[in-house]
Amino acid sequence: MSEFPIIERNRVRRVPKRGQYDKDTIYRILDEGLVCHVGLAEDGQPVVIPMNYARRDDAVILHGAPASRLLKYVQAGHPVCVTVTLLDGLVLARSVYHHSMNYRSVVVFGRGRLIEAEQEKLAALEVLTEHILPGRWQDARRPNRQELDATAVVSVAIESASAKVRTGPPADDEDDYQLPVWAGVLPIQQQALTPVNDPRLHTDMPVPHSVSNYRRTR
Amino acid sequence: MSEFPIIERNRVRRVPKRGQYDKDTIYRILDEGLVCHVGLAEDGQPVVIPMNYARRDDAVILHGAPASRLLKYVQAGHPVCVTVTLLDGLVLARSVYHHSMNYRSVVVFGRGRLIEAEQEKLAALEVLTEHILPGRWQDARRPNRQELDATAVVSVAIESASAKVRTGPPADDEDDYQLPVWAGVLPIQQQALTPVNDPRLHTDMPVPHSVSNYRRTR
Repeated sequence: MSEFPIIERNRVRRVPKRGQYDKDTIYRILDEGLVCHVGLAEDGQPVVIPMNYARRDDAVILHGAPASRLLKYVQAGHPVCVTVTLLDGLVLARSVYHHSMNYRSVVVFGRGRLIEAEQEKLAALEVLTEHILPGRWQDARRPNRQELDATAVVSVAIESASAKVRTGPPADDEDDYQLPVWAGVLPIQQQALTPVNDPRLHTDMPVPHSVSNYRRTR
Repeated sequence: MSEFPIIERNRVRRVPKRGQYDKDTIYRILDEGLVCHVGLAEDGQPVVIPMNYARRDDAVILHGAPASRLLKYVQAGHPVCVTVTLLDGLVLARSVYHHSMNYRSVVVFGRGRLIEAEQEKLAALEVLTEHILPGRWQDARRPNRQELDATAVVSVAIESASAKVRTGPPADDEDDYQLPVWAGVLPIQQQALTPVNDPRLHTDMPVPHSVSNYRRTR
């Protein structure tokens, strides 16, 4: 299956032409993002928490302290929502009304389970680490037994998902194209700046290529 | 009151030393962000949707189509959660376990109301427009009656909020500082690139300074 079925829960309702349901689009967005926003519902009270994440196959992996309220909630199997948004630009139209943003977002619905087996847990932590910086699992010291015990890792199986994408210039009303107003797109991009050495770094330690050549887009 | 009281709902539980509750910190983060993630709870099902927003005094303003399920939910006065996250860097430690991110995030709890009076609605749309690009309300064509009717604007009064902030280098275990692993911070910043003219722009229209000199940090 390369497309998530469109059901009531994941159907894109506002501007439906922007909705996309194929796994390729959805997974490319999930693989580019660095932060997701995880939504819980606790007795009718929604809570949205930013987290690191990574996708592995048809699941989103989250991790944190075993005492984390959020992870306890997720691993209990309650329904959760995981949303990732990439902002690509400000869409500056001639009319205030047609101002918009170019973006790519994904909303995932699913339920989590705790990853308990040591090998699977290590594999999931490798995916999380490599998601942030490819090569880092090789370069850094891997987790020891004590650190593994102090880390909870959950896997949220993606039951349903949708992407929403806007690209391109503003779409003004026909009459407005004659107005003396600059219109266009101001592209926005999350960029890596110059790496900052740890103050306690040995003086002869070069910045690895994985860091100095960091590019988020895959 | 310049600080939100720490109650069960907004207390930062994971790494409490990163929690901040003063309005100055919280509002500076809200004023810098471009996208918020709004959380709803519909019969126990959490839903997290990315939206534009702006802060005005002690409220977060959202807008969209009057038929929007999310806005209908918010204006009905259900509890909502609005979260804004600014990513500032990848924290690359010597051990995988101490990898982290530098970030500033705000979690807001509150309830919404529909803004119905025309003058208040226009004022709220001005705040939303100026939040994205200062000067744009002056430059672009303002909403007419038909456009106002086609826009729902809600104000979410901030009942409680907290910020969470991490800055600085990695914090490795003492024994790990001798490892031959590069460690430090890779700063990440959302940057504006070169503006792209609308394909139908009149040829003699210059890019305004508000666009060409765009800086998000206030």
